[in-house]
Amino acid sequence: MSDILVVGSVALDSVKTTAGKSVEALGGSATYFALSASYFTGVALVGVVGEDFPSEHRGTLERRGVDLAGLKAAKGKTFRWAGSYGKDASVAKTLATDLNVFKTFKPVLSEAQRKMPVVFLANIDPELQSEVLAQMKGPALVACDTMNYWIDSKPEAIKKLLAKVDVFFSNDQEAMKLTGAPNALQAAEVISSWGPTIVVVKKGEHGAFMKVGGKFYVFPAFPLARIKDPTGAGDTFAGGFLGYLASTSSFKDLSELKRAMAYGTTMASFNVEDFSTKNIEALDREAIDERFHDFAERMSVLRLEAGVKGRRAVPA
Amino acid sequence: MSDILVVGSVALDSVKTTAGKSVEALGGSATYFALSASYFTGVALVGVVGEDFPSEHRGTLERRGVDLAGLKAAKGKTFRWAGSYGKDASVAKTLATDLNVFKTFKPVLSEAQRKMPVVFLANIDPELQSEVLAQMKGPALVACDTMNYWIDSKPEAIKKLLAKVDVFFSNDQEAMKLTGAPNALQAAEVISSWGPTIVVVKKGEHGAFMKVGGKFYVFPAFPLARIKDPTGAGDTFAGGFLGYLASTSSFKDLSELKRAMAYGTTMASFNVEDFSTKNIEALDREAIDERFHDFAERMSVLRLEAGVKGRRAVPA
Repeated sequence: MSDILVVGSVALDSVKTTAGKSVEALGGSATYFALSASYFTGVALVGVVGEDFPSEHRGTLERRGVDLAGLKAAKGKTFRWAGSYGKDASVAKTLATDLNVFKTFKPVLSEAQRKMPVVFLANIDPELQSEVLAQMKGPALVACDTMNYWIDSKPEAIKKLLAKVDVFFSNDQEAMKLTGAPNALQAAEVISSWGPTIVVVKKGEHGAFMKVGGKFYVFPAFPLARIKDPTGAGDTFAGGFLGYLASTSSFKDLSELKRAMAYGTTMASFNVEDFSTKNIEALDREAIDERFHDFAERMSVLRLEAGVKGRRAVPA
Repeated sequence: MSDILVVGSVALDSVKTTAGKSVEALGGSATYFALSASYFTGVALVGVVGEDFPSEHRGTLERRGVDLAGLKAAKGKTFRWAGSYGKDASVAKTLATDLNVFKTFKPVLSEAQRKMPVVFLANIDPELQSEVLAQMKGPALVACDTMNYWIDSKPEAIKKLLAKVDVFFSNDQEAMKLTGAPNALQAAEVISSWGPTIVVVKKGEHGAFMKVGGKFYVFPAFPLARIKDPTGAGDTFAGGFLGYLASTSSFKDLSELKRAMAYGTTMASFNVEDFSTKNIEALDREAIDERFHDFAERMSVLRLEAGVKGRRAVPA
């Protein structure tokens, strides 16, 4: 069963980091999101690739059960991105962007896709995100992401979209740029006032926080002293978050939302440990839950009394 | 009873931030540390002030039960520091440093002070920190801090000191500078190899982590969208950490060490909410525990089963 529809890019990425490089490897926002979410729920992907898209990459997504009925193969070449990272893994230097077939991407959803309960509008033109959303038939949960390029060029289109969105994912720099707020927490306050009931702000190595119902829920990153490739970490986080949430019975249960943050963190941590999708295409739920538990234990400070129902902090 | 001996500066600070300013207010590393730790355990302070040190400031420390037998009043003026913070509260711009009586500070401990079980060597000349430590008679726990100035001028003296220290507190930038490591986690690995069994790295608004026994324990900061004055946050963190730890029965219990991190975080969050020591001089343990619990709940993700002893994550 497919629970989440993701609309976004499928790309061939060439990446150089301090740990090495990868050439024309599987990438794209929809790819990272779909692979990550696939460990928790069914995912259908809507996107476009060119005639040159390697069948092995298609196989990678299919092996994870991702529904590729919506992955169109168009005449021309696949979207390519090349970038590099220095010591500061939070800043990607774009070396080349060849949109190719992605330039004219204009998704028309099938009847089945329109009826899906959860939709993730990955980072594409915000006007296109709105057009896709308009095709949906009463989804239970709408989530989206964006990027600096659209914040600079179409900020009003983003604000218009956000009025119709439940969950907004952003990184801290983008959130501050979009709102003009002096810090990420204030930025999330402003974004909440535009519509989304859940605002998730990712801070790379410094973790992430979520604003829900006037309160901030804060999380560190899973500690990794050495990473290989940060590409796709944000979409992998969103995939873990929404994938887990879609597998629960409620989108409003705070405990589940906090666990969704921890699953997002967990999935992103696996992703940055290797190039491209190498790590997140070959996980299993047991390894994911093990790291989730490890992560939770590292920061758990509440003292539990045996036999007592619920949770109580017993400070000395 | 005094459990912790703190040796460091007592100062008059003039601070300007985006939220306002304070003039010749109570400050200094030993001051912030002592006030913070005083909510958990007894604290004796060793430092020096000038003849101009206001008796009201002495009163502030005494009201919190801080033992001031070691606070010498010397001929001359009190150490003064003036600084400002811009939008980025993590960077202080020093406007003036008048060491005054602090210039010739050379602490000689009393018999009672030498026998204290826990000592915190706040940020002073690392050679002086070593000299103070040499006077101690077998303390159970030795902790210290340092700063950029000493990392630039006396890195070898710091490394020599660290070989004799159990707990090292540092901020991320300082840790990277001291070690040359490309990120704070790797910096903590290097510092561990020099001696300290517990390395605590503070990252301001991004939280803090602790390296113990080959593992990183990671914590976000308590989320505050608006802060007034970050001065002293690091020493306040150390005071909460060591104060809580000194009040427990073991310095090696990982659960207690994690709670110490959360108490450090909690105390630092109170500190930055007002200028100088205004907030941390007037707390009570109930308010502290309430925020500790609030902090812990915001990031708690483990699912608890009623009646089951211990803690279990039950992922869906």
